[in-house]
Amino acid sequence: MKAIIQQEANGKLVVKDIEKPKPGKGEVLVKILASPINPSDLSLLEGSFGEMREYPIIPGIEASGIVVEAGSGLLPKMRLNKKVSCVTSGNGGTWAEYMITDAKKCIVVDDETDDFQAASFIVNPLTALAFIDIAKKYNHKAIVNNAAASNLGKMLINLANKNSIEIINIVRRNEQVESLKDFGAKYILNSSETDFGEKLKDLSHKLDAKLFFDAVGGKQTKTLLKSAPNGSEIIVYAKLDKNDIEIDPVDIIQKNKKISGFLLGNYMTEKNIFKTLIDISRVKKMLGNEISTNLNKTFSLEECNSAISYYQSNMSKGKVYFELK
Amino acid sequence: MKAIIQQEANGKLVVKDIEKPKPGKGEVLVKILASPINPSDLSLLEGSFGEMREYPIIPGIEASGIVVEAGSGLLPKMRLNKKVSCVTSGNGGTWAEYMITDAKKCIVVDDETDDFQAASFIVNPLTALAFIDIAKKYNHKAIVNNAAASNLGKMLINLANKNSIEIINIVRRNEQVESLKDFGAKYILNSSETDFGEKLKDLSHKLDAKLFFDAVGGKQTKTLLKSAPNGSEIIVYAKLDKNDIEIDPVDIIQKNKKISGFLLGNYMTEKNIFKTLIDISRVKKMLGNEISTNLNKTFSLEECNSAISYYQSNMSKGKVYFELK
Repeated sequence: MKAIIQQEANGKLVVKDIEKPKPGKGEVLVKILASPINPSDLSLLEGSFGEMREYPIIPGIEASGIVVEAGSGLLPKMRLNKKVSCVTSGNGGTWAEYMITDAKKCIVVDDETDDFQAASFIVNPLTALAFIDIAKKYNHKAIVNNAAASNLGKMLINLANKNSIEIINIVRRNEQVESLKDFGAKYILNSSETDFGEKLKDLSHKLDAKLFFDAVGGKQTKTLLKSAPNGSEIIVYAKLDKNDIEIDPVDIIQKNKKISGFLLGNYMTEKNIFKTLIDISRVKKMLGNEISTNLNKTFSLEECNSAISYYQSNMSKGKVYFELK
Repeated sequence: MKAIIQQEANGKLVVKDIEKPKPGKGEVLVKILASPINPSDLSLLEGSFGEMREYPIIPGIEASGIVVEAGSGLLPKMRLNKKVSCVTSGNGGTWAEYMITDAKKCIVVDDETDDFQAASFIVNPLTALAFIDIAKKYNHKAIVNNAAASNLGKMLINLANKNSIEIINIVRRNEQVESLKDFGAKYILNSSETDFGEKLKDLSHKLDAKLFFDAVGGKQTKTLLKSAPNGSEIIVYAKLDKNDIEIDPVDIIQKNKKISGFLLGNYMTEKNIFKTLIDISRVKKMLGNEISTNLNKTFSLEECNSAISYYQSNMSKGKVYFELK
């Protein structure tokens, strides 16, 4: 089978012919149909999540596919010949013709479900749902998100709206402001404007927005923290800025503001499987409505390096996928 | 009356003759006996806590003194002619011959109580107690403190010991390692050693120490966070390093580590007055035992600038006080 291989953190990607693996107990072999490039994949390629896998790695976290072989156990047998949305388990990655994964990491979808929609069924929708659940748990009536033009950002706008939560959307460019206006967003700020900090301070205080979801990090976290009302919490969930996060200690010592992090894998592990299944059925119902994913461009496995470059330059224009035929 | 005055953040201190103020409703006039220089005073002089007072300011947060005049109300009358430990309220400071403060911010002590002990009765002891209370509330069996050679650091060692909590003590110099050994500390690390991060990682994992009290900030916070076991919380309570705190986003996104802050004033405000009174009686019982304060040197108000310089160069040698005669 063909697979994209990375030999070391930050290394170039190459396509190799490798042996098709055999599913073990509780596992299935998935023939991949489509797999997106997510921001978390970029972190993986830089080695930030390297502790989770051993080099050389096959990158890619989620995909759609058909279960073509089942290991021993009831669940693998139940998935056999079904179309699934799936995520990786262990050392396998989705940017390949086939992947071994835990049968529990596969969700059966209808055969008619679009391959690309099904391939983005897990990471972004469950993350958006988790953010809304966190906001509701602590009774926040308004939240802030600073990667608002992303696919996840748009799902969050829809879900916040559905749950009567106000959302302050932060983008980096004027064209994104326009695009989010068209999408129906109510509060949009451009972080490239010189008075961004002041505007965010005014708006977050006015709406009492004390829960910030931060996909950027670096110096922007300092601005978010400084603008936030006293007692706010910033939850960092990605690091689009590669630099360390900077914060003024006065904001946390005196103003009672906090910083924590979010990783979907950790969050799901803390919840029980029953709750996860409920979340998945909630996602299924929203598919095509609140949480449909916007396809931008597709690439073959062989075009992997161009695909990554293209995605990095066009992150808010819609999803980029590997398509396998 | 004579008072130390600062015109603006980071400005030189000057002693001026100003009018003695009159206590209003619920207030008392305290004739100051002694007032310490605390790390939080240095922050105040740099303007970090500037939002709390209007310039020009009289610095100084806590003191011992005699209540010589009472405003209207029962509590002020009950304090009249009594020796008290007190903290500031409103715009008044303790580095002066007299101070107006809220009668509720005065704790009556026995006349025989040493002036200097009584002057350090509130900020450090209540902070040390608060840290131990936080550790116990979340069931931590081991904690870390990185200003371990300070007066607060030593109180914390005694209180942790009394409560069967292990404490990893971080200091900056070899002589402080020796001094803490003599004091009876069990785990001592020197942050100036090149393998400090590795040693802290080993020890914090071995003891399962997941609650870090950080008085330093800057780049040291990054090292603490990186060395800490997954799921740890760092509580920043001072900024001995004037630079911004730096953190690697991977530690919070992927490793579920958190950063929050502690300010005694905020902490006490969140608790009810009954709990505060219990804390104060706990402190009274420990005075002279677990929490006695180590006097280093005294200065007159006129020597204020030398006093600050001396304190900054000798922070872990014991407390520096203004003595008023």
